[in-house]
Amino acid sequence: VELRVDVNCDLGESFGVFRVGNDAEIMPHITSANVACGFHAGDPVTIARTVSLAKKCKVAVGAHPSFPDLAGFGRREMKLASEEVEDSMLYQISAVYGFARAAGVGLQHVKPHGALYNVAAKDQSISEAIVKGIQKFDADLIVFAPPRSALANVALRAKLRVALEFFADREYNPDGSLVSRSQDGSVVRDARQLVQRSVNAVREGTVETVDGRVFKLGRVDTICVHGDTPNAVKLAQALKKGLTEAEIKVEPVGSFI
Amino acid sequence: VELRVDVNCDLGESFGVFRVGNDAEIMPHITSANVACGFHAGDPVTIARTVSLAKKCKVAVGAHPSFPDLAGFGRREMKLASEEVEDSMLYQISAVYGFARAAGVGLQHVKPHGALYNVAAKDQSISEAIVKGIQKFDADLIVFAPPRSALANVALRAKLRVALEFFADREYNPDGSLVSRSQDGSVVRDARQLVQRSVNAVREGTVETVDGRVFKLGRVDTICVHGDTPNAVKLAQALKKGLTEAEIKVEPVGSFI
Amino acid sequence: VELRVDVNCDLGESFGVFRVGNDAEIMPHITSANVACGFHAGDPVTIARTVSLAKKCKVAVGAHPSFPDLAGFGRREMKLASEEVEDSMLYQISAVYGFARAAGVGLQHVKPHGALYNVAAKDQSISEAIVKGIQKFDADLIVFAPPRSALANVALRAKLRVALEFFADREYNPDGSLVSRSQDGSVVRDARQLVQRSVNAVREGTVETVDGRVFKLGRVDTICVHGDTPNAVKLAQALKKGLTEAEIKVEPVGSFI
Amino acid sequence: VELRVDVNCDLGESFGVFRVGNDAEIMPHITSANVACGFHAGDPVTIARTVSLAKKCKVAVGAHPSFPDLAGFGRREMKLASEEVEDSMLYQISAVYGFARAAGVGLQHVKPHGALYNVAAKDQSISEAIVKGIQKFDADLIVFAPPRSALANVALRAKLRVALEFFADREYNPDGSLVSRSQDGSVVRDARQLVQRSVNAVREGTVETVDGRVFKLGRVDTICVHGDTPNAVKLAQALKKGLTEAEIKVEPVGSFI
Repeated sequence: VELRVDVNCDLGESFGVFRVGNDAEIMPHITSANVACGFHAGDPVTIARTVSLAKKCKVAVGAHPSFPDLAGFGRREMKLASEEVEDSMLYQISAVYGFARAAGVGLQHVKPHGALYNVAAKDQSISEAIVKGIQKFDADLIVFAPPRSALANVALRAKLRVALEFFADREYNPDGSLVSRSQDGSVVRDARQLVQRSVNAVREGTVETVDGRVFKLGRVDTICVHGDTPNAVKLAQALKKGLTEAEIKVEPVGSFI
Repeated sequence: VELRVDVNCDLGESFGVFRVGNDAEIMPHITSANVACGFHAGDPVTIARTVSLAKKCKVAVGAHPSFPDLAGFGRREMKLASEEVEDSMLYQISAVYGFARAAGVGLQHVKPHGALYNVAAKDQSISEAIVKGIQKFDADLIVFAPPRSALANVALRAKLRVALEFFADREYNPDGSLVSRSQDGSVVRDARQLVQRSVNAVREGTVETVDGRVFKLGRVDTICVHGDTPNAVKLAQALKKGLTEAEIKVEPVGSFI
Repeated sequence: VELRVDVNCDLGESFGVFRVGNDAEIMPHITSANVACGFHAGDPVTIARTVSLAKKCKVAVGAHPSFPDLAGFGRREMKLASEEVEDSMLYQISAVYGFARAAGVGLQHVKPHGALYNVAAKDQSISEAIVKGIQKFDADLIVFAPPRSALANVALRAKLRVALEFFADREYNPDGSLVSRSQDGSVVRDARQLVQRSVNAVREGTVETVDGRVFKLGRVDTICVHGDTPNAVKLAQALKKGLTEAEIKVEPVGSFI
Repeated sequence: VELRVDVNCDLGESFGVFRVGNDAEIMPHITSANVACGFHAGDPVTIARTVSLAKKCKVAVGAHPSFPDLAGFGRREMKLASEEVEDSMLYQISAVYGFARAAGVGLQHVKPHGALYNVAAKDQSISEAIVKGIQKFDADLIVFAPPRSALANVALRAKLRVALEFFADREYNPDGSLVSRSQDGSVVRDARQLVQRSVNAVREGTVETVDGRVFKLGRVDTICVHGDTPNAVKLAQALKKGLTEAEIKVEPVGSFI
């Protein structure tokens, strides 16, 4: 069988005059864009421009919903009621959907952002709220989730399509969680290493953890690269090239999942 | 011909624990609900509950977008760029649409809120931005606008359906604008008077202004009642009864426009 | 020795047109006002009016800082960095201080709000951040804290004056925490019972828990009443009367601590 | 007489992870810092860091209050009631004051930001609200205002100290207002030209307008440089050097006004 994988990136994370990332430069090197919905970043004009850029670059559009925490960029855990999580998902997905619809493109996926993603990886109840919010809007949407996570399990049980995600530029803990950004050496900055890890993840379904062991990811459907690191564009470029050379086809996850 | 008119009310204007209005009591007496979208009021949970209540009461759902001004409840004029207005409309309409879709009901209309409505009544450029935002999402949506306003004209030229609106509980200035809430006697609180004015507005297309003259409204498609006054429920009840007794059929504007 | 106690209430919790509480009615019956600072509720105009009302009623003014969570009214736990908590305290205390200064009254105390108060009751690290924020502004400010809490301990060790607080209108768990509002019977609504519990708390330093045991509070300096319950005004009135009849003097905590 | 002038810059305009400007590089070249207060930019941690940096560089600290418009960075005009403007001033000034107090430095001045500054230049009523807000907190604070503006007049009549401001890096219209940023050539980017204009402004009290005429500024007390342009640091450095070479002493305005 031919191997295929998606490359996704968080985009549209500016807010008004506050600029984040280099969306225009990174967009050509990815296949799925996670568009900030206004809760941790993003505003109506930014969403419109991001979706329009994605369309131009033939990149699939997804919603990137978050806890309502602009000041903390959605990276701070919040204890929300299930109903609040569910309806916040629906609100944010709908908002981005509107821009996709206006641009004449589909909405491919939903990837929870930051602390919401991290909590959902382990918490059954918040994962259920996330999944309900997605289902209420459109049960055809693909959910991005870490392999073997609560979110992946809940979404699969709800018969949603799940894209299992590998973080190309982040070190892994022995339990499969990411090494915290606040720790030295948590980020993979070397292009060769990043490509090699990604090819391994797709081919073998494994990743070497920060302490030299092997974590079994299982299937990997989509690879996340971050856009806000200094050499992000070069890394994304190298990744696409490296995957292609390894005979792994890079295309939007919606085309093969 | 049979006369028909819609009765609309601004609803879902709570925000978290901050409670506004008595949605549950007023909903049975109206035919169209203008649902706050989160910019001047409304939050995901509130929108969900409001749309669900509207569905239960067979009330048509519309979006009630605003300037981004929670602290001022959208009643303070803001100078936004056209692109900001257009994309803010698209964002807010989409967000409420998602809840309507999840509830299995359609989105009938869009009514700009507060200062945005007042500015659009006179300003061609902001009206064009509003209309573009609506069209980008769905050109079948009905726009609520004051008779003979910039917004009505721009929307009609863009081939949108326009519901011309009469404010049953507000006094009118000689130029057809509403007497400011900050002035004494700006609000009509007497049920009989409110009903009589409404029947006149629908039948004759006129309203008596605050200085005793007659302002020509022309066609009236929808009558606005406010939900946050002490006897709002009684007024809404009286209005529906009074219109029916005057042989004016009260139903959602989407059914006859 | 003469027994003395303070009666405090959370006030100024409106936000723009969103109205909460009956500040004007409850203010005459308390001795310390906890003024919302804009993070969970409160806006500049509301703070100004609340401080002015407190001054008129000879009620001592305190700051009521919160997690930055307007949508959740500060009742949702957030994981903030210590630096964020410390500087957020400083920001909010300063803001309310300005209005006290403008009104020509002093700032007496600081009472963390909602989830921040609950977390600080148990968490040493967040209590240290709170205390540092207070000290940076003014080491003469009194800190409101639950008896035997992490916050009380940390504040005392930092040589701050601490007012130990009893919640007159709430049931207690066996460990001295409050029974969650979401549970039936968590709120004491009977005036006689509320007064009796308060007199006991001040006289004996104990409270009967929800399961009929006795929790040892130790010294009680201030009694909290809530302003947003239907008969809050009557309860506050009854409390002041009951305490006075029991020969407990009711006055601002700053006068005796 | 010895000539003296202040050089001010808007700083602390980051918000959470959203980074704006190069505060650390520009701070050594100015004498007064206008610190964002949280309404258009700035958050508690950012304010703390900015005030601490100013202290280290012996730069005087001022508050830079704004309309409440984070999404628009305070650059969009808003129609606020006088009470709202006045109390918003008091709130923002107090908040920044707290950080100055904690750092052991004084609060020197207040400079309204963006749209608020521009409106106040022409509007008597908003200028009165601004001045009242300042006076309520501390009548010793210096107000930054454009020469011959409504704000300058109102503040002087209220017996406040006023620092008349010249914009070194902006072109002037014939009426003394700034050429809008949205127009080509509105920004002065050449260091020699910027220095020459500044020396002229201080020495002669005049500036050449965009159409080649001369606008009479009168006295100039403080010169504004912007920190967010590519070569801002170099310009600020050149300005200080150029003024010094022209025998104009550069020091905080509070020391000579």
